[in-house]
Amino acid sequence: MFKARLKGDVLKEMIKVVSTLVDEVKLNITGEGITLKAVDPAHVAMVDLSLNKEAFEELEATDCELGVDIDKIKEVLSLAKAGDILDIDHDEEHNKLVVHIENITRHMSLVDTMGMSDPKMPQLNLPANIKLAAAELNQGIKASESISNHIALVANADGFELSSQGDTDSVSLKLRKDLLLHLECSEPVRSLFSLDYFANMIRSVPSSGVVTLAIGQDYPAMMTFEIAEGNGSVTYLLAPRIENE
Amino acid sequence: MFKARLKGDVLKEMIKVVSTLVDEVKLNITGEGITLKAVDPAHVAMVDLSLNKEAFEELEATDCELGVDIDKIKEVLSLAKAGDILDIDHDEEHNKLVVHIENITRHMSLVDTMGMSDPKMPQLNLPANIKLAAAELNQGIKASESISNHIALVANADGFELSSQGDTDSVSLKLRKDLLLHLECSEPVRSLFSLDYFANMIRSVPSSGVVTLAIGQDYPAMMTFEIAEGNGSVTYLLAPRIENE
Amino acid sequence: MFKARLKGDVLKEMIKVVSTLVDEVKLNITGEGITLKAVDPAHVAMVDLSLNKEAFEELEATDCELGVDIDKIKEVLSLAKAGDILDIDHDEEHNKLVVHIENITRHMSLVDTMGMSDPKMPQLNLPANIKLAAAELNQGIKASESISNHIALVANADGFELSSQGDTDSVSLKLRKDLLLHLECSEPVRSLFSLDYFANMIRSVPSSGVVTLAIGQDYPAMMTFEIAEGNGSVTYLLAPRIENE
Repeated sequence: MFKARLKGDVLKEMIKVVSTLVDEVKLNITGEGITLKAVDPAHVAMVDLSLNKEAFEELEATDCELGVDIDKIKEVLSLAKAGDILDIDHDEEHNKLVVHIENITRHMSLVDTMGMSDPKMPQLNLPANIKLAAAELNQGIKASESISNHIALVANADGFELSSQGDTDSVSLKLRKDLLLHLECSEPVRSLFSLDYFANMIRSVPSSGVVTLAIGQDYPAMMTFEIAEGNGSVTYLLAPRIENE
Repeated sequence: MFKARLKGDVLKEMIKVVSTLVDEVKLNITGEGITLKAVDPAHVAMVDLSLNKEAFEELEATDCELGVDIDKIKEVLSLAKAGDILDIDHDEEHNKLVVHIENITRHMSLVDTMGMSDPKMPQLNLPANIKLAAAELNQGIKASESISNHIALVANADGFELSSQGDTDSVSLKLRKDLLLHLECSEPVRSLFSLDYFANMIRSVPSSGVVTLAIGQDYPAMMTFEIAEGNGSVTYLLAPRIENE
Repeated sequence: MFKARLKGDVLKEMIKVVSTLVDEVKLNITGEGITLKAVDPAHVAMVDLSLNKEAFEELEATDCELGVDIDKIKEVLSLAKAGDILDIDHDEEHNKLVVHIENITRHMSLVDTMGMSDPKMPQLNLPANIKLAAAELNQGIKASESISNHIALVANADGFELSSQGDTDSVSLKLRKDLLLHLECSEPVRSLFSLDYFANMIRSVPSSGVVTLAIGQDYPAMMTFEIAEGNGSVTYLLAPRIENE
């Protein structure tokens, strides 16, 4: 059984996070909220998202799994104006998700969850921890896009740097410790990532959001941030690229 | 003889209505205003539009017919800023339409009206009459667009419904009687229409406009609404599609 | 040696002017400012631009020439928010231009200036001089774009006219003397130009800018206007097209 009432904006934030990696996702639903874990088809990145009971206006559910098509949810969300509230329930008889916005009712077929994996987020011990406004990262990403398909994340005890190296040009965004919300770095580190993946992940952070980055030396990066006004959280894991030198 | 002075916004509303169905149109001009009737090339829909003398700032005309190319009028209208007034007259010697906006003068060739038909709007006795804000219909149309190329209009004594049925999903906008401006329905009815045609027609209603829909059982629909701040009126007729069952 | 500090908006105006004609340009730099001259690849138009010392927040330079790739400057400018200040210097050791915006640093390779010509702006004695708001010209250009690829500039002692003639339609923007900021015209003149070139040139005038046009009979046109809030100036020269009659 699943019956929920929530702000369209909360569902939008959630779907934006997931749609950077997958087209379909399995939602793990309980009376305490929704969680999901997904790996992108190329196995380069993973997402772990949870939405607490407090993120909902109302939530009534017994434990269940629902497979949803992200595009269909986006279609419904495109009908929601700012501030609209959605009612969602599971029609078990026909196995459809039923979404109500204002006077509109959409019946949506569900996706079979049989083939969907249950990825586990690895425990990583990453030497550098950086907390900063997503807006800063977005500036660095924008600067890198004309230079390369890759971006390096670099940290030491003094600050944090995003940099990209092209054939003839290069660009970097340097943030000294005092421009960061938090910096903890036990050793100088540098890892290279796909700019596309990194950009999509950072762009799914709610506007005016804050991101905590954990990075190492040629190691995966973890990004964590809040959604649903603090009533939900996201962790992305992104595999590094090998630097040619 | 034809010489008129009118708000660019009035001409824009008129051209938007006509351009949903045809590229060229014959204007029937008298000293009392302009009327036009047109059928789309696929013979699926018809429009009947009239613009009263009061819709013009000034109008001096003897009875005549002018064939105009809709795209050329659109080009001229793209030069008009909100509130601009247009002066239009017929240069009979060269058979051109001459349009003045501010300091710009455009001479426009006319289209031969010889081959253009004079369609007659049929008299239909339709059992359901629904009056509502175009904005409501637009929400229903938007919801249907991801589901199907067709939309059903359904009415009974309790309310009005727009619905679309896809292979796996369905959507409906239900408006109970109290959410409508007017409902008159002597028997339950349902007719199916091309979503494209219906959407274009409803989108040509001036913003914050009100539409009166007349529908029957597997029968053409009529849509009527005002333009030119009440100094003009439009009737669309749209043929139904057969439901496969 | 070259080290400058200037508003992003000033550099944007300069780049917009140059990019209408060329992809790469040689900047002639002195302690008094920057000048450049360029001819487009088709040899239809020329630009002569100068930016005085006063256009900069700071400028320290010894005489030098730098070849820059316009697209790369545009990429950097896309990172500048309104009001942002840029720091630019020449890293002579690696022959790179280094641009700083906020916390971002971009190293940009320079273009070899060896093959770049030093065009000379011819001295022309043009009988008609018209000064007017660029916005007026933009309206005339917009009106012409649906009619033809060419635009005629026409002047006599009474006024100035932009006109275009298509196969069936024509359009003109007529400005009587009292609608112009200045008109000096010793003999009636008319010259035809490529609409594309003319449109791009006029669109690179800063918004709310004023243009001085000098034209003759089947002769090149000169357009002059200010950039950098009066601390820079631009002269465009545009070759005429032959009228078929």
